[in-house]
Amino acid sequence: MSLSIRNQIPGTVVSVTRGEVMATVGVSLDSGQEITAAVTREAVEDLGLAEGSAVRALVKSTEVALATGPVEGVSIRNQIPGTVTDIATGGAMAGVKVSVPGGGELTAAITKDAVADLGLAPGSSVVALIKSSEVALAAV
Amino acid sequence: MSLSIRNQIPGTVVSVTRGEVMATVGVSLDSGQEITAAVTREAVEDLGLAEGSAVRALVKSTEVALATGPVEGVSIRNQIPGTVTDIATGGAMAGVKVSVPGGGELTAAITKDAVADLGLAPGSSVVALIKSSEVALAAV
Amino acid sequence: MSLSIRNQIPGTVVSVTRGEVMATVGVSLDSGQEITAAVTREAVEDLGLAEGSAVRALVKSTEVALATGPVEGVSIRNQIPGTVTDIATGGAMAGVKVSVPGGGELTAAITKDAVADLGLAPGSSVVALIKSSEVALAAV
Repeated sequence: MSLSIRNQIPGTVVSVTRGEVMATVGVSLDSGQEITAAVTREAVEDLGLAEGSAVRALVKSTEVALATGPVEGVSIRNQIPGTVTDIATGGAMAGVKVSVPGGGELTAAITKDAVADLGLAPGSSVVALIKSSEVALAAV
Repeated sequence: MSLSIRNQIPGTVVSVTRGEVMATVGVSLDSGQEITAAVTREAVEDLGLAEGSAVRALVKSTEVALATGPVEGVSIRNQIPGTVTDIATGGAMAGVKVSVPGGGELTAAITKDAVADLGLAPGSSVVALIKSSEVALAAV
Repeated sequence: MSLSIRNQIPGTVVSVTRGEVMATVGVSLDSGQEITAAVTREAVEDLGLAEGSAVRALVKSTEVALATGPVEGVSIRNQIPGTVTDIATGGAMAGVKVSVPGGGELTAAITKDAVADLGLAPGSSVVALIKSSEVALAAV
């Protein structure tokens, strides 16, 4: 199965917190970074997710925001630093490629206005911001 | 690969419109309904999507909104009618199962306040609303 | 017709920028704030959106992040300041109500961990962050 989802980041489950309906899953990425996914509790049961499970974190590029540096005091759980490698600009949107230390690449689809306002160009240091409810998990 | 993504709806690509960065893909669901996915143009190329491609439309349950009837004059491209079959309520969120004509089931994760305000219960007629940028595609 | 979408903010279209497949729509909210929605170009045509169109911006609560103050250098186009009025906490997620100057209320569904880390409580000043691709529009 090939997915249109551009961002597929390998890691290992380090924690599972179950609510009645939703669950938050902590994932230690192979790059060392830790991220959080908010998925349904049912998905956690179906996939048998537990500490030690090998997963891939899946994030649609339209769900990735970019900041020019780390952001403090924000509810967004996931902040992944990297460097812009390429920008493709359309009439309304732009696709920004970000290389992540430890290997791997993220794609962010943001407005072309945001690219201009942030002055993004290849070489720019950025932090990718991803809300935990936008992170899906694949068991591998 | 098992996915945490609750909603995986089989269909066939009926149109692909390419922009510089993004592309919209029309998918005719096996249930007869047509939906639109907004994905990166790169994903369309990588998956080789074209008219006739068999795909599954993937939608995280947190991306599914519910209305008590069809909604006119809204930018949200995808409206799938169905009937509520089950509701699980937590402290903040609720998981609502919706059976769809022609078979299949959708899961929506909405606030428990929304369930109360809409008076949702098993048997309620609803329309699932899904923004096209929240639909990912899997080639099958 | 009732929608589960918690956040429905009235405003007027002030700009439309068309790409090949996507479009960005600037909306001046009745509260004076300006926000941006990224929707399909097709939706813009179908709704006949143009400068002066009366709309409601629709945002699912799972798409609203919160910060403890304004965030600079971020691609997220929409930042709406307000004050926390209520927090409902579940096992994994929390629903946070935010009153907005000029009237109106926003709901954000964020992780309960984020509520704890940010020290949110009724009375806290916050800024709601909403990526433009998460904003849908309804013509009114």
